[in-house]
Amino acid sequence: MSFFRRCIDEMQAYEPGEQPFPGDRVIKLNTNENPYPPSPKAIEAMKGLDGESLRRYPDPLSTNAREAAARIYGVPVEYIMAANGSDEILAYIARACLEPGRKIAYPVPTYLLYPVLGRMQDCDCIEAPYYEDLGIPVTELIEAKGAVTIICSPNNPDGNTASLKDLQSLAENLSGLLVVDEAYCDFAADNAMALVKRFSNVIILRTLSKGYSLAGLRLGFGIAHPDVLKGILKVKDSYNVSAMAIRIGAAALLDRDYLKETVAKVIKAREGLAADLAALRFKVWPSQSNFLFVRPPDGNAEYVFKSLRKRRILVRHFNKPKIKDKLRISVGTPDEMSALISTLKDILK
Amino acid sequence: MSFFRRCIDEMQAYEPGEQPFPGDRVIKLNTNENPYPPSPKAIEAMKGLDGESLRRYPDPLSTNAREAAARIYGVPVEYIMAANGSDEILAYIARACLEPGRKIAYPVPTYLLYPVLGRMQDCDCIEAPYYEDLGIPVTELIEAKGAVTIICSPNNPDGNTASLKDLQSLAENLSGLLVVDEAYCDFAADNAMALVKRFSNVIILRTLSKGYSLAGLRLGFGIAHPDVLKGILKVKDSYNVSAMAIRIGAAALLDRDYLKETVAKVIKAREGLAADLAALRFKVWPSQSNFLFVRPPDGNAEYVFKSLRKRRILVRHFNKPKIKDKLRISVGTPDEMSALISTLKDILK
Repeated sequence: MSFFRRCIDEMQAYEPGEQPFPGDRVIKLNTNENPYPPSPKAIEAMKGLDGESLRRYPDPLSTNAREAAARIYGVPVEYIMAANGSDEILAYIARACLEPGRKIAYPVPTYLLYPVLGRMQDCDCIEAPYYEDLGIPVTELIEAKGAVTIICSPNNPDGNTASLKDLQSLAENLSGLLVVDEAYCDFAADNAMALVKRFSNVIILRTLSKGYSLAGLRLGFGIAHPDVLKGILKVKDSYNVSAMAIRIGAAALLDRDYLKETVAKVIKAREGLAADLAALRFKVWPSQSNFLFVRPPDGNAEYVFKSLRKRRILVRHFNKPKIKDKLRISVGTPDEMSALISTLKDILK
Repeated sequence: MSFFRRCIDEMQAYEPGEQPFPGDRVIKLNTNENPYPPSPKAIEAMKGLDGESLRRYPDPLSTNAREAAARIYGVPVEYIMAANGSDEILAYIARACLEPGRKIAYPVPTYLLYPVLGRMQDCDCIEAPYYEDLGIPVTELIEAKGAVTIICSPNNPDGNTASLKDLQSLAENLSGLLVVDEAYCDFAADNAMALVKRFSNVIILRTLSKGYSLAGLRLGFGIAHPDVLKGILKVKDSYNVSAMAIRIGAAALLDRDYLKETVAKVIKAREGLAADLAALRFKVWPSQSNFLFVRPPDGNAEYVFKSLRKRRILVRHFNKPKIKDKLRISVGTPDEMSALISTLKDILK
């Protein structure tokens, strides 16, 4: 007998993007970090931490961070749960809702963690291809009858935002949970937060890893009706969010001006990069996120990926059907974008 | 249909000990924190953190922290995985190994999280009472045929350490995993680390929350044969340990002298407290940990718990069969222990 469940023995782990060691001199455009530092208020909060805050267990409910999130997201604090990154909320939802006989459904291509979480729970994963115009396959997803249906919006890897009308139609017609993973929404023109007050089966995910430049901190939120959170909280680790994440995260959230400023810089660089890549004959998908999904002139994405890597520029290549001819490139600083474009010119000439 | 699996709807969540807000003036002896601050080296590492380490995703494998742990625990780094507290390793083991038809087994009384994790995985929990002399019910546990068998050593709530002979006998005769949860072993005379090199079905859990005074940081380790870790790592969140925990945790681990010094102070206070409580006619179980399990003179543990709480001293009372006449009291500073004893004298007079 294996130590492990059969579904675990048979599954492949999710493979995160390469994380070079701090100090390695690379241009890192592979895991969608924000190129700008976190808010000075967050740094100040970090400097204010003392031994006492490390010595004691953190607040199991992350109250201070949730209160800050409630102000920023415009929902009551009872609608918010905090976690060690929004990935942890995804894992909690899977553990609470999925088992053999229940299904997880999502449009593809999307975040490759979703099927991995489904397989861990030994349940069927229903994948419905996005329409050609990147519209959500609403009918197919409703017919899939998922206990959990996940829409990533803006979508990873293409940066497209789901229409509120489609999300509403899903919420109205699904009897299971509708998860809207808004990890990248700080860079988008719109978001789905309004739905949680209208639909008790909708849960929105947010993170401080992207817009707030705090990927190393590990803080994310699930926003939903308190009855939904009550079930998910049952599977939560007691002390899942560190004392530092609670304090630093709260400070970062409340610095609205800083978010606005860095997001504006990223959006400006995104539009510049899109134009520069189009000029190099890349196909560029319209993005509401801090990355671009692109197809090199000849679809030789793997070659471009490897050539960039040799020149110490990391971008993301997914060796998967339908997307292996494309690359996902995080938006960096103007200097990083210039270096990328001139290196690409060199590689493709 | 409920959003949740039936086993989730039917289960009760684990209830962590009360965590008063920082600044609340209480004597906190309810969740076994170390009363002394973390190592100055850990604080120094914290002060050295910058925005860049928060901006980027942390190393998914927590290499720096695992390398420090490898030196301290005397095992190769490949034998170590890191997590957001050792509770997270417990949850990973449950997710990787437990499902309907598989069992989790453990002696009772013990850490109340184990049955909760079993129920989340919808599997049977086999509870074998400890012998009267606190010996492990080895035969009963072997007969239980758990896919996972957990021994907490030193045991929570009584502070007793498992004998190496019993653990070895379990490792030899169990076909599933034997988890030895050594959260409190920094305060004990002995530990079971030697078993992981001899038995490929043994996994040892360690944490920095107790001996290292870093409960707020969230860092724990699982130590086992790399083949075992390979299975457990499949269910790991990509970035489960924060950049701060990796760096601060590594610094704390490597400061051996500081650990020795604070542990010696805690042990001295533990022995003093045991004598003082015995003088007040409490029954005191022998403890190898940083807490004492005690029975008040008349077994009126709930009354003593509530009376202490009114006087702003928090201890732990478990309202469960067989242990509801007892209290678990964390060992604090000499001043805190004096305050506790004089308050108890007042309550019991």
